[in-house]
Amino acid sequence: MLKEKILNKESGIITYGLTPPKKKTSHEKIKEIAQTQINRIKDLDLDALILYDLQDESDRVDQERPFPFLPTIDPVVYSKEYLSALNIPRIIYRCVGKYSKEEFSNWLQTETNKDRFSVFVGASSKDKAVKLKLKEGYRLRKELNPDLILGGVTIPERHSAKDNEHQKIFKKIDYGCRFFVSQCVYNLSYAKNLLSDYYYHCQEHNQDMVPIIFTFTPCGSKKTLKFMKWLGINIPQWLENDLKHSEDILERSVQVAKENFAELFRFAQEKKIPIGCNIESVSIRKVEIKAAIQLAKAIKKIISSN
Amino acid sequence: MLKEKILNKESGIITYGLTPPKKKTSHEKIKEIAQTQINRIKDLDLDALILYDLQDESDRVDQERPFPFLPTIDPVVYSKEYLSALNIPRIIYRCVGKYSKEEFSNWLQTETNKDRFSVFVGASSKDKAVKLKLKEGYRLRKELNPDLILGGVTIPERHSAKDNEHQKIFKKIDYGCRFFVSQCVYNLSYAKNLLSDYYYHCQEHNQDMVPIIFTFTPCGSKKTLKFMKWLGINIPQWLENDLKHSEDILERSVQVAKENFAELFRFAQEKKIPIGCNIESVSIRKVEIKAAIQLAKAIKKIISSN
Repeated sequence: MLKEKILNKESGIITYGLTPPKKKTSHEKIKEIAQTQINRIKDLDLDALILYDLQDESDRVDQERPFPFLPTIDPVVYSKEYLSALNIPRIIYRCVGKYSKEEFSNWLQTETNKDRFSVFVGASSKDKAVKLKLKEGYRLRKELNPDLILGGVTIPERHSAKDNEHQKIFKKIDYGCRFFVSQCVYNLSYAKNLLSDYYYHCQEHNQDMVPIIFTFTPCGSKKTLKFMKWLGINIPQWLENDLKHSEDILERSVQVAKENFAELFRFAQEKKIPIGCNIESVSIRKVEIKAAIQLAKAIKKIISSN
Repeated sequence: MLKEKILNKESGIITYGLTPPKKKTSHEKIKEIAQTQINRIKDLDLDALILYDLQDESDRVDQERPFPFLPTIDPVVYSKEYLSALNIPRIIYRCVGKYSKEEFSNWLQTETNKDRFSVFVGASSKDKAVKLKLKEGYRLRKELNPDLILGGVTIPERHSAKDNEHQKIFKKIDYGCRFFVSQCVYNLSYAKNLLSDYYYHCQEHNQDMVPIIFTFTPCGSKKTLKFMKWLGINIPQWLENDLKHSEDILERSVQVAKENFAELFRFAQEKKIPIGCNIESVSIRKVEIKAAIQLAKAIKKIISSN
């Protein structure tokens, strides 16, 4: 179904994003974490599970990272060894620069008989030393496994700064991307601006629009808020004020995420732009994860009632 | 009623903004223009009529002004000699820098037995040569006519650039301002950001909020859109795209203005921030003025249904 939804450029794809546990975690503990995640996710009726591949982004900004960076288990390993009970497609993130050409090529050529989905991620900054460049990753996929359904990352905040994120999308479409996943959205205007330029460019060039999956996340504490800002997520001043002064920041953030998705979905439906939604929790606190699950359910309702 | 609404810091003040005709217009023609304006406005049940005092702002930006600047009749003269049939309070704008100390003092001391309302406007740029400084205008009012109910200008776009517009508001309150009128709002986030910082500052300092009257205007052509941008009005990219591609830009802009005011009013009501609405047409085209009148009626409905 996911394959068809992507290739038919359908609206309403819904995914849940997970970061694998830290590498230093014991096998027993990982099994326990995975079981909890399976229980939470299994009945959500998702189109896919997104599994992130973390890279240390401390080179991207000068400010100290509010939560320390610790390497995480490979998303493929985590998916196969711990989440096999979850019978939904996986979208595997790949920070291309972390891998040697050989590693990356080998991974591309595994399980070629199955439907596979991946999002390739470039370096977090221009100066970062990489083993493999994103373009080289695209080339290898085309050469070694053109059936792998490829997605790209898109960041509305970058569009706000440079007005060219939609052009980056088209470039990535040329490299083979068939869907996009955004960074977390808290600034609705930024997301609308990107979608609008994307839409009018497609109209003008008589080009089909591929699905853009926007990520939404709850924010359950001032520390999470600080971390989101560190990640580069723009939060409008009024909303940051409201969240900071809220008696229940978590509930307020979930309400805002629902409202923002509903408005973005309405905006996109009006123009027949295929958008979807990815829900994640940037925090590992249980209450924030539970709120993310609630958010996923609420967004599923918004999608199906349209 | 206007006096009470301002001094009681009430929500829902509604005004209509007019620019007097150009100075070079013949007396007969001005009478004709005024009669048309009276007919349009008289049944709107407004709290006040705002009469602008134009200054040449071509020093403010480098780009060419899309419509040429031509001096206009003094708003007091226009009000008294041509609009006397309109029985509603006037809020007279005063570009303080245009007047000598004597002229300004004389004007302040006329009709001191009546309720008078004025908004003092500062220089359009730092380098502009002025006859009288804004601060001096504030001082003269305090000395010569402290009963004159004073308003200030506030610009959400400036807040977006410098984050300190709410502090400017408090400074102007110290100088005697009892209400504010904004520049035209097309970027809802900017208006919310300003209101939010204003609100939380008042909460923190246990200070009362004075009414902020937000200006909304239709946009009936690409030329008007260009002019609005020249005036410094920020329009989100998605909205600019939609307006430019709209089959009926005027209708679309009125719809957006209604939606934006409704959302801003809801936002303000939730926090009990007193806001009002000023409607104007930045264009002199008949269709755009008619749309402004329709917009005023629609906004009156939004206010009274809350």
